[in-house]
Amino acid sequence: MDTTDFGLLSPAWAATGADVRLGDPVLVRALLDVEVALATAQAEAGIIPAWAVAPIADAAAACSIDVAELAEGVRATGDPVTSLVTQLTREVASTCPDAAAYVHRGGTSQDILDSAMMLLAAQALDDIDHDLSRCAGALAELAGQHRHTPMVARTMSPHAAPTTFGLQTATWLQLVLDARRRVRVLSDDLPASLGGATGTLAAYLECAGSAGAPHDAVERMMTAFAEELGLRESLVPWHGVRTPLVDIAAALVMTTGALGKLAVDVQAMTRAEIGEVVAQGAPGRGVSPAAPRQHDPMYVTALNTAARQLPAQAMVLFGSVPVADERSAGGWHAEWQALRECLRLASGAAANAAELTAGLTPVPDRMLANLALTGGVVLSERLTTALAPLVGEAAAKHRYNDRGAADSALVDELAGLDIDALRGLLDPVEHTGIADVLVDRVLARYVAESRPPITRLRPVPAPR
Amino acid sequence: MDTTDFGLLSPAWAATGADVRLGDPVLVRALLDVEVALATAQAEAGIIPAWAVAPIADAAAACSIDVAELAEGVRATGDPVTSLVTQLTREVASTCPDAAAYVHRGGTSQDILDSAMMLLAAQALDDIDHDLSRCAGALAELAGQHRHTPMVARTMSPHAAPTTFGLQTATWLQLVLDARRRVRVLSDDLPASLGGATGTLAAYLECAGSAGAPHDAVERMMTAFAEELGLRESLVPWHGVRTPLVDIAAALVMTTGALGKLAVDVQAMTRAEIGEVVAQGAPGRGVSPAAPRQHDPMYVTALNTAARQLPAQAMVLFGSVPVADERSAGGWHAEWQALRECLRLASGAAANAAELTAGLTPVPDRMLANLALTGGVVLSERLTTALAPLVGEAAAKHRYNDRGAADSALVDELAGLDIDALRGLLDPVEHTGIADVLVDRVLARYVAESRPPITRLRPVPAPR
Amino acid sequence: MDTTDFGLLSPAWAATGADVRLGDPVLVRALLDVEVALATAQAEAGIIPAWAVAPIADAAAACSIDVAELAEGVRATGDPVTSLVTQLTREVASTCPDAAAYVHRGGTSQDILDSAMMLLAAQALDDIDHDLSRCAGALAELAGQHRHTPMVARTMSPHAAPTTFGLQTATWLQLVLDARRRVRVLSDDLPASLGGATGTLAAYLECAGSAGAPHDAVERMMTAFAEELGLRESLVPWHGVRTPLVDIAAALVMTTGALGKLAVDVQAMTRAEIGEVVAQGAPGRGVSPAAPRQHDPMYVTALNTAARQLPAQAMVLFGSVPVADERSAGGWHAEWQALRECLRLASGAAANAAELTAGLTPVPDRMLANLALTGGVVLSERLTTALAPLVGEAAAKHRYNDRGAADSALVDELAGLDIDALRGLLDPVEHTGIADVLVDRVLARYVAESRPPITRLRPVPAPR
Amino acid sequence: MDTTDFGLLSPAWAATGADVRLGDPVLVRALLDVEVALATAQAEAGIIPAWAVAPIADAAAACSIDVAELAEGVRATGDPVTSLVTQLTREVASTCPDAAAYVHRGGTSQDILDSAMMLLAAQALDDIDHDLSRCAGALAELAGQHRHTPMVARTMSPHAAPTTFGLQTATWLQLVLDARRRVRVLSDDLPASLGGATGTLAAYLECAGSAGAPHDAVERMMTAFAEELGLRESLVPWHGVRTPLVDIAAALVMTTGALGKLAVDVQAMTRAEIGEVVAQGAPGRGVSPAAPRQHDPMYVTALNTAARQLPAQAMVLFGSVPVADERSAGGWHAEWQALRECLRLASGAAANAAELTAGLTPVPDRMLANLALTGGVVLSERLTTALAPLVGEAAAKHRYNDRGAADSALVDELAGLDIDALRGLLDPVEHTGIADVLVDRVLARYVAESRPPITRLRPVPAPR
Repeated sequence: MDTTDFGLLSPAWAATGADVRLGDPVLVRALLDVEVALATAQAEAGIIPAWAVAPIADAAAACSIDVAELAEGVRATGDPVTSLVTQLTREVASTCPDAAAYVHRGGTSQDILDSAMMLLAAQALDDIDHDLSRCAGALAELAGQHRHTPMVARTMSPHAAPTTFGLQTATWLQLVLDARRRVRVLSDDLPASLGGATGTLAAYLECAGSAGAPHDAVERMMTAFAEELGLRESLVPWHGVRTPLVDIAAALVMTTGALGKLAVDVQAMTRAEIGEVVAQGAPGRGVSPAAPRQHDPMYVTALNTAARQLPAQAMVLFGSVPVADERSAGGWHAEWQALRECLRLASGAAANAAELTAGLTPVPDRMLANLALTGGVVLSERLTTALAPLVGEAAAKHRYNDRGAADSALVDELAGLDIDALRGLLDPVEHTGIADVLVDRVLARYVAESRPPITRLRPVPAPR
Repeated sequence: MDTTDFGLLSPAWAATGADVRLGDPVLVRALLDVEVALATAQAEAGIIPAWAVAPIADAAAACSIDVAELAEGVRATGDPVTSLVTQLTREVASTCPDAAAYVHRGGTSQDILDSAMMLLAAQALDDIDHDLSRCAGALAELAGQHRHTPMVARTMSPHAAPTTFGLQTATWLQLVLDARRRVRVLSDDLPASLGGATGTLAAYLECAGSAGAPHDAVERMMTAFAEELGLRESLVPWHGVRTPLVDIAAALVMTTGALGKLAVDVQAMTRAEIGEVVAQGAPGRGVSPAAPRQHDPMYVTALNTAARQLPAQAMVLFGSVPVADERSAGGWHAEWQALRECLRLASGAAANAAELTAGLTPVPDRMLANLALTGGVVLSERLTTALAPLVGEAAAKHRYNDRGAADSALVDELAGLDIDALRGLLDPVEHTGIADVLVDRVLARYVAESRPPITRLRPVPAPR
Repeated sequence: MDTTDFGLLSPAWAATGADVRLGDPVLVRALLDVEVALATAQAEAGIIPAWAVAPIADAAAACSIDVAELAEGVRATGDPVTSLVTQLTREVASTCPDAAAYVHRGGTSQDILDSAMMLLAAQALDDIDHDLSRCAGALAELAGQHRHTPMVARTMSPHAAPTTFGLQTATWLQLVLDARRRVRVLSDDLPASLGGATGTLAAYLECAGSAGAPHDAVERMMTAFAEELGLRESLVPWHGVRTPLVDIAAALVMTTGALGKLAVDVQAMTRAEIGEVVAQGAPGRGVSPAAPRQHDPMYVTALNTAARQLPAQAMVLFGSVPVADERSAGGWHAEWQALRECLRLASGAAANAAELTAGLTPVPDRMLANLALTGGVVLSERLTTALAPLVGEAAAKHRYNDRGAADSALVDELAGLDIDALRGLLDPVEHTGIADVLVDRVLARYVAESRPPITRLRPVPAPR
Repeated sequence: MDTTDFGLLSPAWAATGADVRLGDPVLVRALLDVEVALATAQAEAGIIPAWAVAPIADAAAACSIDVAELAEGVRATGDPVTSLVTQLTREVASTCPDAAAYVHRGGTSQDILDSAMMLLAAQALDDIDHDLSRCAGALAELAGQHRHTPMVARTMSPHAAPTTFGLQTATWLQLVLDARRRVRVLSDDLPASLGGATGTLAAYLECAGSAGAPHDAVERMMTAFAEELGLRESLVPWHGVRTPLVDIAAALVMTTGALGKLAVDVQAMTRAEIGEVVAQGAPGRGVSPAAPRQHDPMYVTALNTAARQLPAQAMVLFGSVPVADERSAGGWHAEWQALRECLRLASGAAANAAELTAGLTPVPDRMLANLALTGGVVLSERLTTALAPLVGEAAAKHRYNDRGAADSALVDELAGLDIDALRGLLDPVEHTGIADVLVDRVLARYVAESRPPITRLRPVPAPR
C-alpha cells in the first residue's frame, strides 16, 4: 500500500511526512493492529483460546486489503470496519479456518475505529512534540543571542515603543512551549476505546461466558487491550463521552495558533520595506519567475494555511459532543476526517515551523533604522515621564497626542536637560524596560521543560 | 490515473461518485485542460502562434503526470502548478521543441489553479442540481399523495397540534427548491480566472507586445479563455476579490442544510417508538450483527455528517476574503481543500438524499396513533377557541396550561356542545388549517421550476 | 426606553448608531409594531372586528414595557413574546376591555418574533446599503484619480511586480459593489413570518371561522400582514425553512469580508516603514499617550474586529437550518442573538468604512520609493520577456530565480539594448499591464449601479 | 448602575444571574477594581507613594461612571479604558488633587481590560463549578438508584441492545465531571495582565526610576498586582500570548458540550412516543396555550441554545492567537465580547442544567415497554452468541441481518434450548453487560472529586 493523500491541495502538510503517516494505508494498518490487539487481550483474559492469536496476527500482517471494497463498505454500513473484518476473516479462514470465529470477537466497529484513530493521534502527537522541540530550540538560541537587540514594538500596527528582538522571540517561544506542554500532556492520555455496541460491553461478556472465562474477564480484557496498544484504559467507554476529541482539538488549535502567530509576525517583518528578519528557505525552494523572493515565503504560507484551516476542523469535533443516543448517526462519523485533518495540519505546521525557525536570521541594522523612522515618537512614553517634572503631567501627555506638532515644541523643553541625560532619553536601547528579565524567565522555563521528547515504541502505524 | 481519495473516513461522500469526480487525478486533468485553454485563447488573440496549440494539447492529453513530484512541488513553491508546468513543458519539448516556449505563456499559478477549481465546481454543481432534482421529484410525489394524511406537529419536541404529512414533505421540498435555485444560479456564474502575477495581466501584455498582437489582444484573450472553459468572463481579475467562493460556500451550506433538515426529521420519525416513516435502504446495505435495522440509518447518517462538516469548510472560505496583499500567503492556499471538500460533501449529500427520498414510505396508521397519544392536548388550540364562548377566553386558556388537569374538567364543558360538533372538534384531520393550500403552493413552485437540469457539455473533468 | 447595548466590549459597532438601532428598546418596539400589524391584517381579512384595531394600536404606542419582566418571561417560556403579549393585553384591557380578546388573536410567538427580526434586518440592511454607497463613492473617486499612480503589488507578501493604486482601489471597490448588490437584493426579499403554532395557520383559521370571515380570510391576512410590515409575503411559513437566515448571513459575511480586505490592506500600507496611504481619523480620535499615531488605526481595528466576529455568528445561523421538528428547541433560539449581532457588526463596519475611505489619502512618493526598493526584482517578469530573445527563455527565467545573484550579471545583457528601451524597461509605470482598462471596467459598473439607495418608509423601528 | 444585558434574545442565560454578573455595570466595576489594585501594587513596590492609594480607592468606590461616554471612548480610542481613566482621574482630582497623577501610573489599556476580564472569568468559573456540582450530585443519585433499571440503547437512532438508565446517567455524569475538572483547573490558573504598552513594562520602570524605587520594583509590582486581584502572576506578559483564552474557550466548549449531550438525550427521551423521562420544570414555567407540555422543554431549549452558540464564540477566541504585532488591531478587540458571551452561555447552561437534573424523573415502565417494542431485535447479539453452537456462527449472524425474516425461523432453533435458558435469553435485564461495574466506576470518581467547590473571596465583581 502506498500513500493515497498526496496533498496537492494541502500546502500546509504536503510532502512533510504527515501525508504518509496519516494516509489511508496507515489507517488500514492501524485498524488491523487494533484487531490483533483485541484478539491478544481476549486471549489473555481467557475469552478466546490462546492459539487463535497467532493466525489472526499473521493474517493481519499478510493480508492485502482492497481499499475500494472498504470504501463501498463505508457507504453501505457507515464505516470501514465491517468490510475490513470481512476481508481479514477471509484471510484467516484461508490459513487457519478454526481461528476465523475469533476475529473481531464480540467486537463493534466503533471500538476498532476509535482505537485506531487514537493510535494515529499518538504517533502524530509524538511527531509534533518532536518538531515543536526543534522549533523551541531554535527560538531559545535566538532569544538568548538577541536579548539586547533593540527593535520597535508595534501596537495596532503603528510603532509604539522599543522592545528587543530577544523578547519578541521569547514571546514566540512561550507560545511554542505552551503548545508543546498541551501536546505532551495529551499524548500520555489518549484512551483506548472498548465498549461494545452500546457501551455495556455485553457481547464481550457473552463471549466470556461462553468461553467459561473468569467473572472479571471483561475488565481484564479492557486493561490488556489498552496496554497492548500503548494507550490509556478509559474509566468507562467513551462512545458517548467525546472528551478526548475536545482535548485533542484544543491542543492542536493551540499548536497551529502558536505557529501561526510566529508566521504572521515573520511575514510582517520580512516585508521588503521592513526587512527585520530573513526567512531563508531550504535550497531549491520558492521558485517563481514572477517573484524572485528576498526570502522564502513558503513556510509562512504553510503555517498561515494551517492556522486558518485547523480551527474549522476543531469546530466539527466540538460539535460531536452534544449528540443524541448511545452512538450518534452523524455526530461520530463527522469526527473522523476532521480529526485526521487536525493531526495532519498540526504535524505539517510543526515540521514547517522547525525549518522556518532553523533558517530565521534577524537584521539588527534594519531594526535600528526602523526604530529611528518615527523620530521620538516611539519614545514618547519615556519623554512624557522625563518632561513631566518640567512642564506638568497633563501638558506632557497632551503634547504627544498632537502627533508631530509636538516635535518642534519639544526642543525648548529638552534644553532644560543636560546633554547626557538627553542622549540617554533618545537611545531606544535604554527604553526596553525589563525585557531582559522576561527573556531569562522564558529561557529558564525552556530549560526546565527540555527533557528529550519521548519517542515511544508504539506497536503501530508504520506503513508496510 | 486512478482515484486517490477513497473516502474511508468520509461516509458523507464515500462511493457516491463524488470521490472520483473530485479526486486528485481529475484535478490534474483539469489543470492540464486549463493550460490547453490558455494556449488556445492566446492563439486566438494572436499572442502565440496558432501552430503551437496542437502540440500542447496533444502533450496534455498524452502526458502522465507524476503526482508525488507535484506534491513535492506544492511544498517547495506553495502550489502544484509550477511542477505541473515543468512536467507538461518537458512532454511538449519531447515531441515539438519549438512549442515548449508557448506553454503557460505569461501565466501565473493562480490563474491556472483557480480556473481548474471552477471547472471542478461547475461539474459538481451540475451533479448536485441533478440529484436535488431527483430528490425534489420524490418529495413532490409524496406531498401530493399525502396532502390529507394527518400527523402530529412537534414544537420544541413535544406534540403541539395536527399537521399533514403532505405539509411536512412540502416543507422539505421548499428547502430543496431553495437550495437548487441557488445552485443553478451559481452554476451559470462561475468565473474563469485570468490576472497574471498581480492582477494587471502585465506579463500577458508583454507577450502580446513581443508577438506584435493587436492592442486589445489581452482583452480578447480573456474572453476567449472563459469561452473555451465554459465559464463566465470576470469583469476584473478576482485574485483579491473572493466573492465567488463566498457564493459557492453559501449555496452549498444551503444544500447540506436543507438535506440535513430532511435527515434529522426522518431520523426522529423512524425511531422505533415513533415509526411514522420507513427509510428503506438499497438492497445489501446496513448490515451490522449488533443492530439489525428496522430501517436503514445510513442515508440519514451520511446527510447528518455532511450537514455537520460543510459549514466548517465554508468558514475557511469566508476567512479568505479579508486577507492582505494582491495575493495572500495562506488566505488563498487555505481555500483549496476547503472548496473541494464543500463540493464533495454537497455532492455526496445530494446523491444520498436522492436515494433516501426514493425509498421513503410514510406509515399513516402510526401517524394517527401518535396523534391520539396525548389525548386532546394537540387540539388544545381548537378547543380553546370552541370553549371560549362558553367559559370565557382566559379561563379556556388557563385550563390547558395546567397540563393534564384540564382533561377531566373538560368533559363538563364539552357536554354543552352537540355531538357532531364534538366529533369534529376531536378529529385532528379537521384541524390542519390551510395545510392543503400550502402544499399546493409549493407544488406549483416545483412545477414552475422543473425544467430539466442543464447538462452542459463541459470540456473537462472526465478522468482519463 | 433608552439603548441597553452600550457596546463597551464591541469596538466594531460602539457609538456608530448600530447600537441604538438594534438595541433591546427598538426590538421591543418592533414586536409591538408586529402585534399591531397582525391586528390590522386580521381586521382587513374580517377575522377580528375593525373597531378593535385602534385600541390595540393606541395601547402599543402608549404602553411602557417592563423589560425585566420580559427577561423573566424568556427564561420561563423560552421567548420574550408571551410576556410582551401579557403586558400589551393588560394595557389594552385598561382602556378598552372589549378589545383585549383581539390582541395576538390566534397568534404564535414565532410569528411575532421572526417578523420583528425581519423589520430590524430591513432597517439595518438599508443603513448598510447607505454606508456602502458612501464607501463606494469615495473609492470610485480614488480609483479614477489614481488610475496611473504606480505602486508595488505584493504576492505572498514579497514584492512581485508593479500595479497602480487605481487598480488596488478598484479591487476594493469591486468587493464593496459585490457586497452592496447582495445587500440590496436581500433587502427587497425579507419575508414576513406567519404560520401559527405548527405552520398550518390552524388557529388563525379557527378564529376566522368563529368570526364568520370569508373562506380565504387566512390567505388575505397573510398578504395584508406582509404589506403592513413592508415585507415580502412568504410562499409558505418558514418556521422550518430557514433560508432567509442563510441569505442574510451570506450577504453580511460578504460585507464584513469586503471591508475587512480593505482594512488589512490599509493596515499594511500604513505601517510606518511602508507609508503608502494615510488613514486620517476624525478629529479628537485615537488618543493614547503611549502611541501617538502617524495615522488613526481605529477604523482598521473596528473593521478587523467585525471581519473576525461575523463569520462565527453566521455559523450559528447556518446551524439552524438542519434542525428537527416543526419548530426546533434550540435551533430557533440560537438564531436570535446571532442574527442581531450579524446586523450590528455589518452596520458598524459599514459606518466605520465610510469614514475610513473618506479620509484615505495615498502617498504616491512613498509608493514610488517602495517600488524602487527591490531594484529590478519587481520587473523581473518584464525583463525576462525582454531578455529572452537575447539569452534564451530558460536562461532568462533561471537568472531571476537565483535571487540577487542575477543583478550583477544583468548589466551585460542589458548593454545589448538601446538606451531608450532600457529606460522603458526599468520604468515601473510602463509595466502595469491593462490596469487602466480594468479600473475603467469597475468604474463603469459603479456608475451603472449607482441609483440612490432606496430609503424605504418602513413603519418601524424608531425608538420612542 | 443596573444590568444592561437583559437577555431578551438570549434564552440560554436570560434571568439566570449570569446576565447581571457579566453585565456592563459589573465590567465597569471590575475595571475600577483593577485600577485600585494597580495603585496598591505600585505603592507596595515603592513606585507611587503609599498615601495616594486611599484617595484612588475611595474615588473608585464613589465615582459614577458615564457609560455612554465610555461607549464614545470605545469608538474613539478602541477600548473603554482610556475614557474610564479620564473619569476616574477627574473624580480623584476633585477630592485629592495630588493623587490624580498616580491614577493608572504608567498603565496601558490592555493591562486593565485583560485583568478585568480575568476577574469576570474567575467569578463565572466559580459559579459554573458550583452549578456543575449540583448537576453532578443529582446525576450521581440517579445513577446509583437506577443501576439496574433496564432501557434500550440506541445507535444511529435505531434500537440496538439493552443498557441501564444507571449507565445512561453515569455517562452524563462522566461528561459533567470532565467539564468540571477542566473548569476547576482553569479557575486556579487565570493570569493577571501586566505588560505595559509593548510587553516590556518600560513605562512602569520609568516611573519606578523617577520615584527612586528599588531596582526590582517592577517585578515586585507584578507579584503584588496578581495577589491583589487573586489571580496568577504570569511568567511574562501575555499581550501576544493568548493561551489563557484558548484554555477558557476549550473548558467552556466542554461544558456546554457536556450539558448539550444531556439535553439532546433528554429531549429524545421525553418525546411523547418515547416517554422514558419526565423533565419537570419549576412551577409557573412553560406556559404556551398552543402546546400544553407533557414536560417542560425550556431547560432543554436553553442547553441546546448554549451548545449551538458557544463553539462559534470559541472560534473567535481561537482566531486571536495567530495575530500580528505586539498588540493586534482587531485580534485583541474581537476577543472581548466573544469571551464574555462564552462565560455567559456556560454560566446560563450550568444554572439551567442544575435545575433540569434536579427535576428529572425516569419512567421505568416506559423503558421496559420500549425495550419490548422491537421484539428480539435488541437481543440479537445475545441470541447470535447463544445460537452459534447450534447453527454455526455465520448462519446465526446472517439470520439477524435479514431484518424480521429471522423472527419466524428463530422459533425452531430456540426449541433446542431449555426453558429457563430461554427465559434468561429473552430478559433484557440479563443482557446489560458490565453496566453496573461501569456505573460504580463513575460514582467512585464522583466521590473522589467531590470536595466542596471553593468559593473564593475575590475582591471583585459585586455590582454596586
